[in-house]
Amino acid sequence: MHEELLRRAIRLAVENVQSGRGGPFGAVIVRDGEVVAEGANRVTSDKDPTAHAEIQAIRAACLKLGRFDLRGCVIYSSCEPCPMCLGAIYWARLDALYFAATHNDASAAGFDDSFIYTQVPLKAELRSLPTKRLIEAEGKQPFAIWVANESKIPY
Amino acid sequence: MHEELLRRAIRLAVENVQSGRGGPFGAVIVRDGEVVAEGANRVTSDKDPTAHAEIQAIRAACLKLGRFDLRGCVIYSSCEPCPMCLGAIYWARLDALYFAATHNDASAAGFDDSFIYTQVPLKAELRSLPTKRLIEAEGKQPFAIWVANESKIPY
Repeated sequence: MHEELLRRAIRLAVENVQSGRGGPFGAVIVRDGEVVAEGANRVTSDKDPTAHAEIQAIRAACLKLGRFDLRGCVIYSSCEPCPMCLGAIYWARLDALYFAATHNDASAAGFDDSFIYTQVPLKAELRSLPTKRLIEAEGKQPFAIWVANESKIPY
Repeated sequence: MHEELLRRAIRLAVENVQSGRGGPFGAVIVRDGEVVAEGANRVTSDKDPTAHAEIQAIRAACLKLGRFDLRGCVIYSSCEPCPMCLGAIYWARLDALYFAATHNDASAAGFDDSFIYTQVPLKAELRSLPTKRLIEAEGKQPFAIWVANESKIPY
């Protein structure tokens, strides 16, 4: 069962390369044994660097279910998610993750997944991305307004 | 200059909460001193858990510039990006990041940013997200097809 759903994600990845629509990544989201949504990498064809397979699948599943969380759903990814997609999986509250290839396999094929995994845990001043924090006190204002807002919808 | 652009991102965050459209986060992308695109958090109103301010701004800037990378551009975020958005900033090849509030400020207001920062560096079996790797050898197939494909567009 899990293997078959992973094979579906892998087929999406293969077809995506063969059709020239993007990178070699596919993902499938499932609820109660039924496929809710699929996604394939569309970075180059959609000209969107966030259009990774898992993000595409999460967006499609949320659109289909009319919800901003995917509790009760599971994601199958042809490859271990990069930190962006792993973060998206946490934010989407998915119940579980199954994957086949590793981020090292992705890196061996020329993708930055492993590099970004080394960057995220670093202090900002040690990352390759030049980063500067300014006016932190002013930056807290939106949170104060949020906390005081009784009609907010938390997520 | 940097402070003024951060204040613009902070204003977007404040207005976003006041209008009830989403969480207290805003972002601005700038090239050569000109604002290319803005973004505000739309998780709840768009029913999309990936619709964080930075991701919204990156998508809008790529759409406007017709490119899947943002080399030559800088991002200003009202708050330190979560790991999903930090990953997106790396994939978008942005030149630099400026932010005001920290992920600890976000966490104090009820958001999972700091929690997700603790999760990403962990081995999969130690994360709170149940994760299983299966059929890794089959998962390598899409990469083999990608590497052999001479008409691919790398990103």
